[in-house]
Amino acid sequence: MKVPSFELQVRVARLQDHLRAQGIDGALLVQRADTLYYSGTAQNVHLYIPRAGRPLVLAYRDFARAQSESSWGVVPLTGLSKLPEFIEGAGNPLPNVLGLEFDVLPVSQFERYRRLWPEAVFRDISAAIRHQRAVKSDWELERLKEAAEIYPQLLVYAREILRPGMTELELEGLLEGKARALGHGGFVRTRGFGSEFHFGAVTAGARAAVAGAFDGPVVGAGLSPEHPGGASVAGIAEGEPIVVDTVSVVRGYQIDQTRMFVLGRLSPELTEAYRVACEIEERLRRLLLPGRVAGQVYEEVLTWVKDNTPYAENFMGFAHSRVSFVGHGVGLELDELPTISRGAKDILVPGMVIAIEPKFVFPGVGVVGIEDTVVVEGSTGASFLSKAPRELQIVRAEGDAGGQKADETLR
Amino acid sequence: MKVPSFELQVRVARLQDHLRAQGIDGALLVQRADTLYYSGTAQNVHLYIPRAGRPLVLAYRDFARAQSESSWGVVPLTGLSKLPEFIEGAGNPLPNVLGLEFDVLPVSQFERYRRLWPEAVFRDISAAIRHQRAVKSDWELERLKEAAEIYPQLLVYAREILRPGMTELELEGLLEGKARALGHGGFVRTRGFGSEFHFGAVTAGARAAVAGAFDGPVVGAGLSPEHPGGASVAGIAEGEPIVVDTVSVVRGYQIDQTRMFVLGRLSPELTEAYRVACEIEERLRRLLLPGRVAGQVYEEVLTWVKDNTPYAENFMGFAHSRVSFVGHGVGLELDELPTISRGAKDILVPGMVIAIEPKFVFPGVGVVGIEDTVVVEGSTGASFLSKAPRELQIVRAEGDAGGQKADETLR
Repeated sequence: MKVPSFELQVRVARLQDHLRAQGIDGALLVQRADTLYYSGTAQNVHLYIPRAGRPLVLAYRDFARAQSESSWGVVPLTGLSKLPEFIEGAGNPLPNVLGLEFDVLPVSQFERYRRLWPEAVFRDISAAIRHQRAVKSDWELERLKEAAEIYPQLLVYAREILRPGMTELELEGLLEGKARALGHGGFVRTRGFGSEFHFGAVTAGARAAVAGAFDGPVVGAGLSPEHPGGASVAGIAEGEPIVVDTVSVVRGYQIDQTRMFVLGRLSPELTEAYRVACEIEERLRRLLLPGRVAGQVYEEVLTWVKDNTPYAENFMGFAHSRVSFVGHGVGLELDELPTISRGAKDILVPGMVIAIEPKFVFPGVGVVGIEDTVVVEGSTGASFLSKAPRELQIVRAEGDAGGQKADETLR
Repeated sequence: MKVPSFELQVRVARLQDHLRAQGIDGALLVQRADTLYYSGTAQNVHLYIPRAGRPLVLAYRDFARAQSESSWGVVPLTGLSKLPEFIEGAGNPLPNVLGLEFDVLPVSQFERYRRLWPEAVFRDISAAIRHQRAVKSDWELERLKEAAEIYPQLLVYAREILRPGMTELELEGLLEGKARALGHGGFVRTRGFGSEFHFGAVTAGARAAVAGAFDGPVVGAGLSPEHPGGASVAGIAEGEPIVVDTVSVVRGYQIDQTRMFVLGRLSPELTEAYRVACEIEERLRRLLLPGRVAGQVYEEVLTWVKDNTPYAENFMGFAHSRVSFVGHGVGLELDELPTISRGAKDILVPGMVIAIEPKFVFPGVGVVGIEDTVVVEGSTGASFLSKAPRELQIVRAEGDAGGQKADETLR
């Protein structure tokens, strides 16, 4: 179950290349996804990576567990004030230039490091780390494929349990419990300060089209002002488009995926919009080619939607709630690089893993769209990591003679 | 469903008293629990609270939702660079001394504020906010009582579904799904940098006694190094002490609670240890009196355990994994003030809400203990907010003639 030591060696060596190129003596990492990525343990640790040589895991809790999980040397960290002593004690020179994760590190913790190394210069290395982590290894892609096994089972289960009058929250609770039983790791790591996320958005009809704090096209009404996203306590009515947008996480790696359900029959207008969303996803997938610039791909998709569909105003949100991306990196965190977004300068390279999610928001009516997690690979476009049928999932409603035929939805 | 405006007025007025006393011109708040507490909305906002006058909500997303939820003026925030313009535009003088949440604010975001107000002095007001939030209003206590309705129903449900061979994860998934259906808000807000929490620890036998990153006496083995806490995929055996330590959150407010279950029969030794844990909880509850110093209460409990029980070595963890507290504040966040911990100087006052959790950790065997959320009140000790029978929950196992009698467990 350990992260293989060759994985950790390659990851650390790449960061060390960056440190040397930037004239940084060492990196002191504290953010959980970063320390997990470079050390193999998700215990509460500081990780010191010198510009050359062996990293040092300084474990606050739990030392024994960190020691059994990481390939690096692990020492117990009995207090922040002892960091310099431990780092130098392991044979590292006193760092004159120290790299930190400025994008997440709290000010008060930074002030403590400044007092510990009063002569040092501190540099932000978070962008370099995020760019490195954007490109997944074969081992990481295997982990993502494991995580991709959950959603197809949720889809089958949702078909079994969906019934008219069921509330969004009842459906969400059952799917969440099922996902856990299938090995879902629980919480979904995010990096952005203040980002709040729980399982996903299981939401239907007009509630799905309500904007909110979460930086995505589908937020959901949620339960109250304090829980302002995801499922609400409203009952799901026949004919409403039902969005099941959830993140599956196994061994830390996340698959972000969306499929659509309906009880009874979806209107021809929304059925057609869903077909178009699926077509956009396929076009976008083929645009994700090594060498392409992320922001240009975004503009190309936007232009296509504007020129070829009547839904440009509804794409990826409506009015002030529109988001300015159509895909986002995903891995150990939900908000990784690259984003397929306005102005994004990232150049796509093989191994980048991206959740692509063309969605249309119709205020007062609902959301239709699709989402899959793909990996940038070769000359024919990105490959799917996520799997599950893309057809609209039609569940027969009470008194419904035959329901809609699935093959009406994807032509 | 809105937070009443008198609540917000009182909260803001208290913070303004602090700002004036400290010579701070205004507070610029960004942390979600804090902005929710003072503004009533959990949307993605900056909240500016001047030393006198009306607060201003600067809403990034979603403006309309923030406007419908907050009693204060709300303006759309179209970019961080416009913060000074909006704040001054609302009639506030240019702040010379600005209060920020240094305990959570990332360095890179702080650097942006420094560029926006190059002449200003910045001060950390996070401790003042946390101390204010430690004391709950009557309205907040009502919310906590609502959240307290979930756990007793989980307890009944757990009795129904527990069966030998069920894995910890199966039990956790069912309880999690049930909690959601009962109105559990989903994610549990925590403040500490890097703290990771999901629903709670549903764990049994020796797995419950494994130490981990989470700063509590019960962590659980978890699913993998990447998800290093909570339920594991191990089956629950007859006779193992089963810990169901979960957080219920409704309208943002959290109740932290633990009860013990067993399939069949718990050993007399563990049954006795559980009885002692319940006795400690009752003694601790009576010590939580207005005017008492939190750290002294902690020492008193520790001394009592040492002098009156054979379990001093097992109290609140074992060896290096022992935690140095026996209670923690809880409210909008799981790690609020006060902590009933070594050296804590907080003086208890009525309205403080504390999760008290005496637990014994027996390595290789399991954990027994209890947890309730209480409010500091009058001269007879804190009052319970959480509710549920305290008896060991004995579920008959296969081929078990009669199982243990509940009244053996609490004499």
